[in-house]
Amino acid sequence: MTERPEQPQSSPAAPNNPGESPAASVPEELLEIRRSIDNIDAALIHLLAERFNHTQRVGRLKARHGLPPADPEREALQIARLRTLAGHADLDPDFAEKFLGFLVEEVIRHHRAIAREEASGRGSDAGTVTD
Amino acid sequence: MTERPEQPQSSPAAPNNPGESPAASVPEELLEIRRSIDNIDAALIHLLAERFNHTQRVGRLKARHGLPPADPEREALQIARLRTLAGHADLDPDFAEKFLGFLVEEVIRHHRAIAREEASGRGSDAGTVTD
Repeated sequence: MTERPEQPQSSPAAPNNPGESPAASVPEELLEIRRSIDNIDAALIHLLAERFNHTQRVGRLKARHGLPPADPEREALQIARLRTLAGHADLDPDFAEKFLGFLVEEVIRHHRAIAREEASGRGSDAGTVTD
Repeated sequence: MTERPEQPQSSPAAPNNPGESPAASVPEELLEIRRSIDNIDAALIHLLAERFNHTQRVGRLKARHGLPPADPEREALQIARLRTLAGHADLDPDFAEKFLGFLVEEVIRHHRAIAREEASGRGSDAGTVTD
């Protein structure tokens, strides 16, 4: 991302710059918001990478010790907690729950791969998982 | 989060502590990882809430100024950037792209709602969107 040069007034509500029409300043406002979205997305990607590092550890731990892949009680707690956090952050709780489901789908994929590796030694079936 | 007291050897492979069986120490390690996952999830939820604040602004801006909802060039850049970031963070780039698609789906839902509100004044159709 290239940095936009400093401007005394970049607000589209104050088009005092004779060379800038209100129409031209709208994309500028859009670009500013997009820069923030891009920063947030970078943070999200890195947090997701870190989350999967942890769930991989959980997968290896469970596979190594023959622990059951799913834990409905833990999953119910996770859903309830994320819905509450979402509500406080003004995020749709249904979306938060859907997001957790989206992550768990990927965790299942990872854990199945781990279980397949471990299964060469002793049979293990990772149907659903809770991290 | 409560800190677990320091232990010289907490690895389940070295059950030298006579009061702790290997089976009991595994859940403790699992609980520790889960505490980290829960912290990461809280951060993710708050970042997602912030991201949607920004995309809501984009939606209102586009609807107000009659800007087209989709921007394939921006979308291609976002995908390429997130795939690269994911690669560097050791996250599956395909998952990163799928994640962006998952977010965009929700953004579309929001922008459609905004467009419907704005449509009372002038017709607007938000088929696909780029934030």
